[in-house]
Amino acid sequence: MALIVQKYGGTSVGTVGRINHVADMVSARRKAGDDLVVVVSAMSGETNRLTELARQINPDASAREMDVLLSTGEQVTIALLTIALHQRDCPAVSYTGRQVGIVTDNVHSKARIKSIDHAGVRRDLDQGKVVVVAGFQGVDEQQNITTLGRGGSDTTAVALAAALAADECQIYTDVDGIYTADPRIIPDARRMKSVTVEEMLELAGLGAKVLHLRSVELAGKYRVPLRVLSSFEEGDGTLITYEDESMEQALVSGVTCNSNEAKLTITGVPDQPGIAYRILAPISNAHIDVDMIIQNVGDDGATDFTFTVSRIDYEKAIAILLDVAKKVSADNVKGDRDIAKVSVVGVGMRSNPGIATTVFKALADEDINIQMISTSEIKISVVVSEPEMKKAANVLHSAFQLSGEVSREEGKCA
Amino acid sequence: MALIVQKYGGTSVGTVGRINHVADMVSARRKAGDDLVVVVSAMSGETNRLTELARQINPDASAREMDVLLSTGEQVTIALLTIALHQRDCPAVSYTGRQVGIVTDNVHSKARIKSIDHAGVRRDLDQGKVVVVAGFQGVDEQQNITTLGRGGSDTTAVALAAALAADECQIYTDVDGIYTADPRIIPDARRMKSVTVEEMLELAGLGAKVLHLRSVELAGKYRVPLRVLSSFEEGDGTLITYEDESMEQALVSGVTCNSNEAKLTITGVPDQPGIAYRILAPISNAHIDVDMIIQNVGDDGATDFTFTVSRIDYEKAIAILLDVAKKVSADNVKGDRDIAKVSVVGVGMRSNPGIATTVFKALADEDINIQMISTSEIKISVVVSEPEMKKAANVLHSAFQLSGEVSREEGKCA
Repeated sequence: MALIVQKYGGTSVGTVGRINHVADMVSARRKAGDDLVVVVSAMSGETNRLTELARQINPDASAREMDVLLSTGEQVTIALLTIALHQRDCPAVSYTGRQVGIVTDNVHSKARIKSIDHAGVRRDLDQGKVVVVAGFQGVDEQQNITTLGRGGSDTTAVALAAALAADECQIYTDVDGIYTADPRIIPDARRMKSVTVEEMLELAGLGAKVLHLRSVELAGKYRVPLRVLSSFEEGDGTLITYEDESMEQALVSGVTCNSNEAKLTITGVPDQPGIAYRILAPISNAHIDVDMIIQNVGDDGATDFTFTVSRIDYEKAIAILLDVAKKVSADNVKGDRDIAKVSVVGVGMRSNPGIATTVFKALADEDINIQMISTSEIKISVVVSEPEMKKAANVLHSAFQLSGEVSREEGKCA
Repeated sequence: MALIVQKYGGTSVGTVGRINHVADMVSARRKAGDDLVVVVSAMSGETNRLTELARQINPDASAREMDVLLSTGEQVTIALLTIALHQRDCPAVSYTGRQVGIVTDNVHSKARIKSIDHAGVRRDLDQGKVVVVAGFQGVDEQQNITTLGRGGSDTTAVALAAALAADECQIYTDVDGIYTADPRIIPDARRMKSVTVEEMLELAGLGAKVLHLRSVELAGKYRVPLRVLSSFEEGDGTLITYEDESMEQALVSGVTCNSNEAKLTITGVPDQPGIAYRILAPISNAHIDVDMIIQNVGDDGATDFTFTVSRIDYEKAIAILLDVAKKVSADNVKGDRDIAKVSVVGVGMRSNPGIATTVFKALADEDINIQMISTSEIKISVVVSEPEMKKAANVLHSAFQLSGEVSREEGKCA
């Protein structure tokens, strides 16, 4: 008998039919003997409906009142799912964020959890009840309703699993696990049976999008066994683990792509102390996030400075950079929208310098030009032209033998 | 500068446009200097939408979970109205039932308020904020969400007005006040400037339907000045008062009609001690409410026993009565569905025995046959055949000179 925290997202509870399906899954698991805490999101569409009502009244609604408004979405779902469980003779009780004792800071719309008082949940679990919890929400110390921002329901689930020392936290979503690459780009991408939390962080941060970064970080901090699986298909999904040792034979765990960035270059900048700050501060002050940054000092004491931003910020960034160029007496400003970033990720690569060589050789063999390179302990990213992204990703996926049916635990990886 | 508690019902906040209209009214009043607490219901249609979702999943949903579900309706409205007030530069803050400190018993779906901790409301009012409160809801002592049942938002408003010792509690609705009779039945029925709480209780109980009985009782208990007015039209509405003295000149304040009852008679019952109990206990055990009861003892030691029930309970009551008739050796059971009750109500009539005479004479002059009579200190009800209801009501309305434009305070009444 295990204690499992499950989380079902908005599409998993988007209709009465889907709620009934989740209730079937939950009650079957409960009857099999597991203790269950089930975290749910608002029914898909509901948050948009409420946001639109508010927008019609006041496009600049206060964050506190938006939290009061939007938190009703999850509250509706907990009641409906609990009602569905009762229909199946499965004892269950619903909890709002406040009732489950989630206390947050007072940053409305993106609050962070400070503490969870789970005595009530424990009591209900001991009585054999399924505890159904509203994700995404809590209260601050003055009892104002707060919401946790994007990925908030995942965060609720992981935080509850940590507080309750659950045996596993299961995130049910519309994909059946974490893949070695995006199957839309690399058709023979393979679902991983497990992935380390560090790899997951890189994969999520780079656009794998299955789990929100924040919930993965939280899971890592408390070493919560986290599993991603599909609420629409049977399967074991992917387990996120923390045991480095079992991962050492796997060098590269996945390949990710991101074509939502654009590249900017300022050339002929006098190489002086503080020049990076003078270039990047105006960009950052305009609330533009910078991703990769590369600086090359040439022989002439001048430097070229290249960085990437989200493509939606490109126009704004170019305008700022033109202004900066005048102030720092730079030669020129260039930009390129048609780029893409391809990354290979893997915990094993940190102790294996040959990985970078494999990346560069594989791309060279296919005449793919690398525009920028950025590395971390468990990731190598290259920027290529956007039309070459898909080819680059497939080349790298093959180079590291990620394809095929056999799971990495069974020794297939390079 | 007064402290006013206002309540707006579901149709008054049923659309974004209506919410904006309420925000205009509230912010104008706030800017004029009054302190305001505004209680709101769920947007009209929302409660039905949520109930239908639950019904599709489980027609026998638990009361606790229905309260969790339905209480979201008011929570949506408080956020939207507060957002609308902010748009008008009117400082405002929303409170759920729990946040405003409404603690109830644990009878889900029809909880009763036990206490209100209004310290937070006071603080916000002192800071010049309009306090927007979700009607209809509270929490029990274990922090479970409860709802107050029918008329719950009126009850919230009256209870808050009592707790805060407000100068007035204003119930905004879709009618512009309390009338001497239903204008659909008596075209020259007149809006009353004021009515005593006792008259109001009789009028509400007899089907005036503007205010829920329970909120009127609560207002009476704490002597909360209660005003009914329209959110769609200008006007002073009707004030419910507690000063008997100012009412003494008014004998009859209104005429009400009820055609939702049916009459049952059991004849030739042996007149023995306990016979009323033996007849009515089976009816009451079947959860059928009995309204009027009349017993006539004849010369032969047998008695006829007549009573009225809601028309929907008629078939059930007849079946029970046929069974009873056998057991008590009664002669016969008769029933009549086509009856109506017409009542005249007025605090002044308790010290004036001539009222009954006026009622009987007015009906006799028009050849309207009286089937049953029931009297209380401030009410005389007669049962007539349903086709004669409207005529009887108009006759009585005229007999007591209730028609016309002049208000009762100005001495028009008989």
